[in-house]
Amino acid sequence: MSGSIFGKMFRISTFGESHGAALGVVVDGCPSNIPITLEDIMKNMNRRKPGNGQIGTTRKEADEVEILSGVFEGKTTGTPIALLIRNTNQRSGDYGKIKEIYRPSHADYTFDQKYGIRDYRGGGRSSGRETAARVAAGSIAKLFLEQLGITVTAYTRSIGSVMVEDTDLHLSEISQNPVSMPNNKVAQQALELIAKAREDKDSIGGTVECIVTGLKPGIGETVFNKLDASLAYAIMGIGGVKAFEIGEGIRAASMYGSEYNDGFCVKEGKVTKTTNHSGGILGGMSDGSDILLKAHFKPTPSIAQSQQTITTHLENTTIEITGRHDPVIVPRAVVVVESMVALTLADLILCDLGANIENIKKLYR
Amino acid sequence: MSGSIFGKMFRISTFGESHGAALGVVVDGCPSNIPITLEDIMKNMNRRKPGNGQIGTTRKEADEVEILSGVFEGKTTGTPIALLIRNTNQRSGDYGKIKEIYRPSHADYTFDQKYGIRDYRGGGRSSGRETAARVAAGSIAKLFLEQLGITVTAYTRSIGSVMVEDTDLHLSEISQNPVSMPNNKVAQQALELIAKAREDKDSIGGTVECIVTGLKPGIGETVFNKLDASLAYAIMGIGGVKAFEIGEGIRAASMYGSEYNDGFCVKEGKVTKTTNHSGGILGGMSDGSDILLKAHFKPTPSIAQSQQTITTHLENTTIEITGRHDPVIVPRAVVVVESMVALTLADLILCDLGANIENIKKLYR
Amino acid sequence: MSGSIFGKMFRISTFGESHGAALGVVVDGCPSNIPITLEDIMKNMNRRKPGNGQIGTTRKEADEVEILSGVFEGKTTGTPIALLIRNTNQRSGDYGKIKEIYRPSHADYTFDQKYGIRDYRGGGRSSGRETAARVAAGSIAKLFLEQLGITVTAYTRSIGSVMVEDTDLHLSEISQNPVSMPNNKVAQQALELIAKAREDKDSIGGTVECIVTGLKPGIGETVFNKLDASLAYAIMGIGGVKAFEIGEGIRAASMYGSEYNDGFCVKEGKVTKTTNHSGGILGGMSDGSDILLKAHFKPTPSIAQSQQTITTHLENTTIEITGRHDPVIVPRAVVVVESMVALTLADLILCDLGANIENIKKLYR
Amino acid sequence: MSGSIFGKMFRISTFGESHGAALGVVVDGCPSNIPITLEDIMKNMNRRKPGNGQIGTTRKEADEVEILSGVFEGKTTGTPIALLIRNTNQRSGDYGKIKEIYRPSHADYTFDQKYGIRDYRGGGRSSGRETAARVAAGSIAKLFLEQLGITVTAYTRSIGSVMVEDTDLHLSEISQNPVSMPNNKVAQQALELIAKAREDKDSIGGTVECIVTGLKPGIGETVFNKLDASLAYAIMGIGGVKAFEIGEGIRAASMYGSEYNDGFCVKEGKVTKTTNHSGGILGGMSDGSDILLKAHFKPTPSIAQSQQTITTHLENTTIEITGRHDPVIVPRAVVVVESMVALTLADLILCDLGANIENIKKLYR
Repeated sequence: MSGSIFGKMFRISTFGESHGAALGVVVDGCPSNIPITLEDIMKNMNRRKPGNGQIGTTRKEADEVEILSGVFEGKTTGTPIALLIRNTNQRSGDYGKIKEIYRPSHADYTFDQKYGIRDYRGGGRSSGRETAARVAAGSIAKLFLEQLGITVTAYTRSIGSVMVEDTDLHLSEISQNPVSMPNNKVAQQALELIAKAREDKDSIGGTVECIVTGLKPGIGETVFNKLDASLAYAIMGIGGVKAFEIGEGIRAASMYGSEYNDGFCVKEGKVTKTTNHSGGILGGMSDGSDILLKAHFKPTPSIAQSQQTITTHLENTTIEITGRHDPVIVPRAVVVVESMVALTLADLILCDLGANIENIKKLYR
Repeated sequence: MSGSIFGKMFRISTFGESHGAALGVVVDGCPSNIPITLEDIMKNMNRRKPGNGQIGTTRKEADEVEILSGVFEGKTTGTPIALLIRNTNQRSGDYGKIKEIYRPSHADYTFDQKYGIRDYRGGGRSSGRETAARVAAGSIAKLFLEQLGITVTAYTRSIGSVMVEDTDLHLSEISQNPVSMPNNKVAQQALELIAKAREDKDSIGGTVECIVTGLKPGIGETVFNKLDASLAYAIMGIGGVKAFEIGEGIRAASMYGSEYNDGFCVKEGKVTKTTNHSGGILGGMSDGSDILLKAHFKPTPSIAQSQQTITTHLENTTIEITGRHDPVIVPRAVVVVESMVALTLADLILCDLGANIENIKKLYR
Repeated sequence: MSGSIFGKMFRISTFGESHGAALGVVVDGCPSNIPITLEDIMKNMNRRKPGNGQIGTTRKEADEVEILSGVFEGKTTGTPIALLIRNTNQRSGDYGKIKEIYRPSHADYTFDQKYGIRDYRGGGRSSGRETAARVAAGSIAKLFLEQLGITVTAYTRSIGSVMVEDTDLHLSEISQNPVSMPNNKVAQQALELIAKAREDKDSIGGTVECIVTGLKPGIGETVFNKLDASLAYAIMGIGGVKAFEIGEGIRAASMYGSEYNDGFCVKEGKVTKTTNHSGGILGGMSDGSDILLKAHFKPTPSIAQSQQTITTHLENTTIEITGRHDPVIVPRAVVVVESMVALTLADLILCDLGANIENIKKLYR
Repeated sequence: MSGSIFGKMFRISTFGESHGAALGVVVDGCPSNIPITLEDIMKNMNRRKPGNGQIGTTRKEADEVEILSGVFEGKTTGTPIALLIRNTNQRSGDYGKIKEIYRPSHADYTFDQKYGIRDYRGGGRSSGRETAARVAAGSIAKLFLEQLGITVTAYTRSIGSVMVEDTDLHLSEISQNPVSMPNNKVAQQALELIAKAREDKDSIGGTVECIVTGLKPGIGETVFNKLDASLAYAIMGIGGVKAFEIGEGIRAASMYGSEYNDGFCVKEGKVTKTTNHSGGILGGMSDGSDILLKAHFKPTPSIAQSQQTITTHLENTTIEITGRHDPVIVPRAVVVVESMVALTLADLILCDLGANIENIKKLYR
């Protein structure tokens, strides 16, 4: 089954293993005449990079992107855009010892069960490194959405038990701290938690939140192909995500209708809602309010503590996974969430409004 | 965009409005030679029916299913199976007054924004009635999965604040109470909560949980088309679902790796895990453990309390939605969740193992 | 594999066997607000009906269509349109004797090889009767195209060796003779040929030609999903078609570039071509000229002459297929070709211009 | 619309323009554990190369392929296989003068109409150079088919009026002449015709035929997704193909049923047919006989004779296209036809038999 292709009209096909020659993506279906520069892409790639030693892996990933096709004189041409990212800093030696062991909470075992062969030099396609191609592709989707005045903004909402409360959200601070939290003070607490986890040879989970503004009503479909279902598919397809919420999310299940329902009202001829518990989606279609969603990530699976596991020969054993691993994946995942949301929206907008950028712009306004 | 088709190989195409002539579904891609009777389908349809006056709407929906094609001498033939459900008990008169009003938390507004036309006699395609076709199709998927020894079991985990705790789960009691809870005593509390909500002209949300047993390792894909992503898409596509969890779900975000990771172990030559925080999925592929997922539903949107809203002419107004409405949708949604999970698994199994039932059976064992 | 679904955005899902309860189709993705009446559909259905005893089978197929969903107050709503056609005139008794015989040039043998079960009462899904659902769906596609000023006209170009020459085409005569030929005189010769074939217990093939006018330039894609490739897929998917040509077709292979190439010229500010050897398609995209294509049909497989064949128990035997069979399928296939062309164009137009009819109309002009 | 992705389960995504940085393809869905070397790929790439000065362009295209992912220790891993082909020998200078002219029979005009932007340095995505990626991908499909004992063999059947007759076919001679004809003597005549066309500043069309052996019965589907329809889609998607035939093809339209029908017979317990007019397909499914198909190519559009055309500013003008152009594309297209047939078969086999190579091998025998 071809599981590395995403989208229906704005379609991406990714490739590459953590320890192979290269990763990359082909974007097929991007409208023509969208201005694009390598800097636009690198700006997002850099946000995905491991941070300083404080929180991330000490691996250096240059992640230089090369545009191979689909761009002419600084604009997309409507033909497939291929983006190439060479792997330059793999240390396969680090991984030799896991050749014959199934790491807990990794995909080693399921990979062998499914394919009967596995690139044991790392996570292969299941490595977080795979998301580099998503971010490269997402950059292009975001450039397209920008043309329509749509913004997609993600940030770290919580790391472990350290969470930014609703009343403490300062979106302007997201870029001011290494964990991409919308609150520098809470970010400091998160950094301490991460440092402690690293010291304990442990790892920790967290939550990414994402807001979309500027989406007009009616994007998405009524039955299976709902906007929320499509976003859930996109987000749950990111490695390590264990839960997805839209609007009130889980809290909705314990609310009364009289609390939950968003009233409509008209102000100065414009339709708004008194609240936005729905997270901007009604009946699977955007309702013109902001889209609000959350992605909940499990802790990074690789920890240096001793864990019970088995060998590929089905013998019981233990493993301590040393090496350059992130104690928390969440800050680097922020731009990945943004990318998948942007790719989903670009795809659904094309489904609704067609493939011609001039036409879409007219229709969108 | 054709949003009423679901699946890649085991594919369903549903149709029908709440107040039209009929609902139904075409199942294309179901393997041949699977024994099937109308009773198999009706057994599931009956679970979706409104209950007694205690919890559900007083509407009577016979939901008689007619098999139009694809079945010969009691077996599927491999050709499309069309199932027809005539609408027999619509009272369009009830809905006349909502012709020119957008009901809060319903899809009336977004429908008009997207299509510029709306069957105002009811929810149309956005009505919960649409799920009848999913349940009919899901019955066929479940018959297919039964051939492979796979079971799919859903139940009500919570209604409002009334929840069955992990330690109180008795799956044998699910069918013994009108809210399909795996605990008769908690079910009684839930019924009281529902009665109170009805009395208050209010509605209430809740959570459905689902367990899959018997799925062999390796089903699902590594990157976008992950098993968990596919399940999330299927579940978030059910009307009213606002959050999806797999395994530990949201809790994973506040856990440490040392707590969360499931150790592997070998017992009598068989691979198992010491825990199942992952919910049976690693790297997007089934790991041989039980699949565990949760669907969180918002409260039913139609309530008899007065709500602020607008007319189709964009004037502010209020509405009290009287008529035959469920104060809670969750108990009826249990079999819908089961159906969508079964359809997703059937589709992914065909993607992996092909379309021939004899071959699949051999491969599956 | 789900082989009974066609299209990407304007998508149809057909069902039904020749001797089952019913045939039908679900059209998912048709834009909203397109006026539609049952008469529009029946007009096409009637063209597919067996003619008088002179050329067609003596079976009577009422082919009454019921609209089950997706239409409200005489207009499409954007939701799936389900169309139902009950089978009323099957005589299964006629087919009992072929239960254990594989008919030459039919799909009995391949059906059994693929599915291991076969509805032996007739051709099942391989029966020409399956095309009734295509014609019903095609009617809707044609109504959509009419909104854009696009016309699709097919006719019989040849039956056996009797052919209408380029210089003798009179499109106004198509509806004036029972073989749908654009020349009444040639039609008379064709009728004589058919009568002779029937007398000889034989059958005969023929060619359907189709012209599309009003298609603006740029519909279709450059690489795999070319307009000509999509049309070929649609046409070769009609039972009995053995060859497909676009523009000059086969003749192009023996032409020189200097003969074949169509010069461009500008007349009164409008781009035209000096010739149309390309059949209206350049690089997979419509070029604004008329689309011209041909579908070549093999002779009807059922003949009353004795033929060598085998039983389902793999014994050699002979068979004479008596009963109500068309000696030629071509005249009834004319509207089927038209339908598949219309469905293909509707789908590709939606891919390019989006799903909103008001927007498409604006963009189209 | 994303027109550069082909296939449903064995899926390829191609990219690259004639005068960009590179061409390439991502193959997603290829089963794991298939032995593969760069030589396997280059063997096919070399067959696509321009021949000696006698027939082909004098451009030199090294077409060195780099495997970027999906292969580990000489075997496919089941993950996407990315293949990269750098452009090394473009002379953009040659093309400067066509920046503002629409070449007849090329896609310049339709490209501008569709996308509003065009890489005027050559054919861009509409260049024959695009087929390099198809051939690279097709090599992998052929390696997969080899595992099942399926062979795909294409050759030049005719060039202009020079054709190899049925009675003169010698498949062993295909590789012995520069035009890939199965008859060295006829090949000599073809070479003379080509030389004459070149001398006359003209080009010429031709026909490629393809035979598939070893395909078991039941591959393909009964209604839309027929094996012949899928092959037609694949072949008509090759630039320059104007007609597609399966089995008797066009001749079927003038045959009688008594001539055309293939009788079944059983010989030593094995089912065969007395003839193979159907070209190995019945009811859209393979019947166990050889698949026989033909692709008819138009003459190469670029000729040095003066042609009437228009500028991008819609002024009438003339053009003489000098430069390094093939007077005939057919001999180089032989391996392209083979590749598209192989890709189609690989895809349909996976749809039927699943994605696991060990399972497919078992099922196939």
